[in-house]
Amino acid sequence: MEARRGEVKQTLQMIGGDGEYSYAANSSGQRKLIIMTKSMLENAIEQMFKTLLLKRITIVDLGCSSGPNTLLVLSQVLDIISKLYKQSKEETLPEIQFILNDLPSNDFNSVFQSLEEFKKKIKEERENLLIPYYVSAVPGSFHGRLFPSSTVHFFHSSTSLHWLSQVPKELERTQGISQSKGSISITRTSPPWIVKAYQEQFQRDFSIFLKSRFEELSVGGGAWLTFPGRDHVDGDSLSHLSELLADSLNAMAEEGIISKAKLDALYFPFYVPLLEEVKSIILGESSFHIEQAHLLSNNIELYIVQDGKKIANSIRAGIESFVAHHFGDAILDELFERFAEKISRSILEEKLTKCNTLNIVIVLKKNTPQ
Amino acid sequence: MEARRGEVKQTLQMIGGDGEYSYAANSSGQRKLIIMTKSMLENAIEQMFKTLLLKRITIVDLGCSSGPNTLLVLSQVLDIISKLYKQSKEETLPEIQFILNDLPSNDFNSVFQSLEEFKKKIKEERENLLIPYYVSAVPGSFHGRLFPSSTVHFFHSSTSLHWLSQVPKELERTQGISQSKGSISITRTSPPWIVKAYQEQFQRDFSIFLKSRFEELSVGGGAWLTFPGRDHVDGDSLSHLSELLADSLNAMAEEGIISKAKLDALYFPFYVPLLEEVKSIILGESSFHIEQAHLLSNNIELYIVQDGKKIANSIRAGIESFVAHHFGDAILDELFERFAEKISRSILEEKLTKCNTLNIVIVLKKNTPQ
Repeated sequence: MEARRGEVKQTLQMIGGDGEYSYAANSSGQRKLIIMTKSMLENAIEQMFKTLLLKRITIVDLGCSSGPNTLLVLSQVLDIISKLYKQSKEETLPEIQFILNDLPSNDFNSVFQSLEEFKKKIKEERENLLIPYYVSAVPGSFHGRLFPSSTVHFFHSSTSLHWLSQVPKELERTQGISQSKGSISITRTSPPWIVKAYQEQFQRDFSIFLKSRFEELSVGGGAWLTFPGRDHVDGDSLSHLSELLADSLNAMAEEGIISKAKLDALYFPFYVPLLEEVKSIILGESSFHIEQAHLLSNNIELYIVQDGKKIANSIRAGIESFVAHHFGDAILDELFERFAEKISRSILEEKLTKCNTLNIVIVLKKNTPQ
Repeated sequence: MEARRGEVKQTLQMIGGDGEYSYAANSSGQRKLIIMTKSMLENAIEQMFKTLLLKRITIVDLGCSSGPNTLLVLSQVLDIISKLYKQSKEETLPEIQFILNDLPSNDFNSVFQSLEEFKKKIKEERENLLIPYYVSAVPGSFHGRLFPSSTVHFFHSSTSLHWLSQVPKELERTQGISQSKGSISITRTSPPWIVKAYQEQFQRDFSIFLKSRFEELSVGGGAWLTFPGRDHVDGDSLSHLSELLADSLNAMAEEGIISKAKLDALYFPFYVPLLEEVKSIILGESSFHIEQAHLLSNNIELYIVQDGKKIANSIRAGIESFVAHHFGDAILDELFERFAEKISRSILEEKLTKCNTLNIVIVLKKNTPQ
């Protein structure tokens, strides 16, 4: 079945459970990012906490996925609020309402079943200061409304906002024409109209995201967003990897393993924006002002060939469901083995010497309505 | 593995998915109860709505399970609030926050995946008046705190509160002694100390339930609770069925298919209280006053033998996980086939002529703290 417009919400999901290809087993990059940025997150929550002087704090994690990182954010938030509470000399403990969000197809059952263990661990670690916290989940796409008006104090989102709500319409219209194909997303050789289509889709999606969060935030509320970004118009290591994945798919089409027409119709619903692009959408949309905006480098030197499989698995965990929806399950193992080999060869030939993921880190504060 | 104290929270769950033995396919009794009591629920929500004059209403369904009934309650709530809104002549639509709760082992993935379809249906049905609503889920046992203080306006719970938090301790101490066994819960021939142990466990559980809900409700909030009850001290059709299940288990122990010692250690963590008992716990606990309290009869005449399988399946959907945790999966099919046969034979011999489930329906209102 081809990926049709509007279906991304149903077809895009991290691989559940804890098997070899699961997101749980292949999300160490995302974990590293969360840990790297902890002190910056601390700062952002501190600002919010001190301004609002809240007895009950509602924090949402958008795109929580299912795996070890899902509850890591909650654990960090508990650390941060405990510390702030101690400094505040308040007598009553604040209560934290922590809301997990992801698409309805996310493996929430796994997350819920890991909660008991998490609660036990937290209780043991913090016997002397246990901030009461309550966990809930809201399934749905963040490219639209998810929560009642003015009910959230703080949004957190890590490595999720580069996923678009859909493949840009302009690309779908070209299905079958096969002009300029061979690629599955923006690459160094993409023609300008493809780049533009992706850019505009991101612009629309991110604007709706900001409008929705504005409605949902209470006065004084804020957001902490991190997601892959670029520092220059030319490709980064993500687009290099995307080319290698496209090469693997093209080889399989040449050999008749997958349909050429289906490959021509395949575009991935993600976009890695420039920091400047993101800033300009926020300023143009006027719901928020920017408290902080950085580009953070998460650089992994690659010198062992085995890393090919690791990188391929970590990308598989994120895109497998999308690929399977397009081509069927049967091709998955072969595709990602070819992909891993290509990455390994690139490392061996020193074409790929590092996996440099740049991440945009943005702290936003809700503007007071005029 | 034996069912140990405190493990009920993990081992008790309705069967997920939509297979032959799933709760989804075997919950028509519960559905009938929800439909039967709709006008009474309407009344209760109306009282709350008119007293509180809310712009945003948070309603929780405790023990929501997974199946067609899960979203039926939400659909009823939307009906009721739409009607009240029309009568009120208010200009702005209220927002509804609907929170689903069940044990972490409940199949929330199924529920979340059915939400998109539900939303589409609601949108088609109510094009002219669509109350904005938001759905979230909170995993955990209602025998304790689940929500931050004063954040809920109304609790709904159907066919859940007869489940205890654990098998009474007194019964566990007798493991291996095997005195007065052959039964797996209270029956017409149970000795008084067993009845007392169950009664006291229910009392403790229901008191903690009331205390927890009191903390979580905002001023003026209320609760709507329905669950199996009795009108006299002697057994009802539930205890007759429980005897037939015990007979099936005893026969399997005699034949060496299951261990006699394990059967001796098996007690079910449920209790069907008298209406008077429930009332007296509420009055003694003082968190709530009773607005309404009825005993409602859901009487099914049994005259066809095939009903045996239907009844056995509907009970299987509720208790399978508990039985499997105790004896292992392997015995399930044989046990419930024997059970179905016994029910069919009872119907044929006119020993079981009706399945008369009595349900307690209670409307509570939070007392204002002194």
